[in-house]
Amino acid sequence: MHDRPLLRDLGEFGLHRRIREILGAHSPDVWLGLGDDAAVVRTRSGALVITTDAMVEGIHFKPEWTSAPDLAYKALASTLSDLAAKCAVPAYGVITLGLPPDTPVRWTDEFYHTLAELQQEWGMEVIGGDTVRSPLILVSITAFGYQESAQPLSIGGAQAGDRILVTGTLGDAAAGLRILLGGAAPETWTPAQAALVRRFRRPTPRLREALDILRTAVPHSMTDISDGLARDLVKLCEASGTGARIVAAHLPCGDDLRSACESYLSLAWQGGEDYELLLTLSPAAAETLLKSWDPARCALTDVGVITPAPEGIRVEGGPGEWEEGFDHFRV
Amino acid sequence: MHDRPLLRDLGEFGLHRRIREILGAHSPDVWLGLGDDAAVVRTRSGALVITTDAMVEGIHFKPEWTSAPDLAYKALASTLSDLAAKCAVPAYGVITLGLPPDTPVRWTDEFYHTLAELQQEWGMEVIGGDTVRSPLILVSITAFGYQESAQPLSIGGAQAGDRILVTGTLGDAAAGLRILLGGAAPETWTPAQAALVRRFRRPTPRLREALDILRTAVPHSMTDISDGLARDLVKLCEASGTGARIVAAHLPCGDDLRSACESYLSLAWQGGEDYELLLTLSPAAAETLLKSWDPARCALTDVGVITPAPEGIRVEGGPGEWEEGFDHFRV
Repeated sequence: MHDRPLLRDLGEFGLHRRIREILGAHSPDVWLGLGDDAAVVRTRSGALVITTDAMVEGIHFKPEWTSAPDLAYKALASTLSDLAAKCAVPAYGVITLGLPPDTPVRWTDEFYHTLAELQQEWGMEVIGGDTVRSPLILVSITAFGYQESAQPLSIGGAQAGDRILVTGTLGDAAAGLRILLGGAAPETWTPAQAALVRRFRRPTPRLREALDILRTAVPHSMTDISDGLARDLVKLCEASGTGARIVAAHLPCGDDLRSACESYLSLAWQGGEDYELLLTLSPAAAETLLKSWDPARCALTDVGVITPAPEGIRVEGGPGEWEEGFDHFRV
Repeated sequence: MHDRPLLRDLGEFGLHRRIREILGAHSPDVWLGLGDDAAVVRTRSGALVITTDAMVEGIHFKPEWTSAPDLAYKALASTLSDLAAKCAVPAYGVITLGLPPDTPVRWTDEFYHTLAELQQEWGMEVIGGDTVRSPLILVSITAFGYQESAQPLSIGGAQAGDRILVTGTLGDAAAGLRILLGGAAPETWTPAQAALVRRFRRPTPRLREALDILRTAVPHSMTDISDGLARDLVKLCEASGTGARIVAAHLPCGDDLRSACESYLSLAWQGGEDYELLLTLSPAAAETLLKSWDPARCALTDVGVITPAPEGIRVEGGPGEWEEGFDHFRV
């Protein structure tokens, strides 16, 4: 057929590879460009970090479950999470909002009031944007920050032998989404279920934790876990030219997740939208970092080791179906 | 009714006013923020200019008329036009593209090949972006540049007595859109009609002209004409606290427009998407600029004068209905 192949045949990874090929090499001032969580450009005043993220009604959220404050919160959190992955301090943002003309003004008031609170809390000032008419709700946020480290923290710097660390707990957001999809009325949720839904709706961008890490160690590679550890680890390993070995029993699962979901390990491995940090560093740096870390504020867990590329990505102690599920990501 | 008022009741101007109120005052490093064509922030390396623009299928373009190259071209041109309005030199951009999964890969190839050509031509390097699944095509571009002038060129600096100048010709894009809406087959278009459609599809961001202007004079206020001279002049006058008097016979209308449309003056006044520059400067500066200007490359025309606010916005020699059409913009 004339129109083949379609995007669905190519997949996201394939599309991104193609875009990089077409747009070509970057100029020398671009330290990190297409293919990373955020771009980093060298300016006379330091390294400027830029990232953008979009959410579309029906694809990334359902209006039935998502209040205007929830949407504002999550759109901003997911964008700032990419800045955290670069150890950047947020500075400015521009926000494009597409809305149907029959949207109540109350909705936009709530959306922008939430942004007004969060720009205080997370230190990102909204300096511009675009409002457009659209048959469905869409949000696109571009955020800028200044990088605090001397060199760019790329997704592609992992080295065989590096320890693999993650912040916080994994799988909570995916469990929260599953609860929403189940359709049970909120008043019937257990406290654990309510906490998981809250993790899905209100993820915390690990901005402070990223700077805490940088104070002790410079990771060889770093990214945020937006698409699930499995998938983001593939991206990191592909970009670094390495493999990885994860110990399933070490995946950090919270009590709420364990009590609410039997398949908690699988959710921790594959579930997306936790927005925790994934980083790799030398064994010595990892040891120093873990020793100095205060787990009371946010967990930091050693979940495995970076291996040479031919070993691929393996999970010790994971159910067999994990390997299979995993193949989908390679497209 | 509980949900009233709706966005359609509030209108775009009303919404923007409300957003500015909710998000509050800017920090001192933000020279220009919400409410202008682009934001300008002071950094240690100079003034960084940031702007964002979105286009949604069915609202801003119809896929039947709009090839992937046309869409890439126009989305980028309209964004860079906002940088031109700030006399900024484009540097970097991030591009978010929302697409249905059944989009042919050929479509995205053409889209990004066009961007690859334009990033050479207009000097803006694409350093990042987001691709998302979406039921309809959407494009959102955020562009950054460095401002060449010592002070920010705001939309709100016009002073009574300033001459009002515009680049190029007006009304062509609106005439082109009208031809497309008429539905006649392209092979039946006259050469004038084809040229007008091309102006609608492929507007030129006046980047070079903006720098040419700056070499001779610093305008008191400047903006690009994206929504039509009438509407953009209202924005400029509201932001400046002034009125304006336009001489209809001085509106620059090209030969194609005059030959193809009887209502050419009305199109030049109200038609949008020409992406010409609208600027105001002192009579002496305007005279010097016009004298030094080479009209062979791009016209530059004196179309009227800024007046004190109480005089409102008047068009000398325009048909009566213009005043009425005008009220819609105030919402």
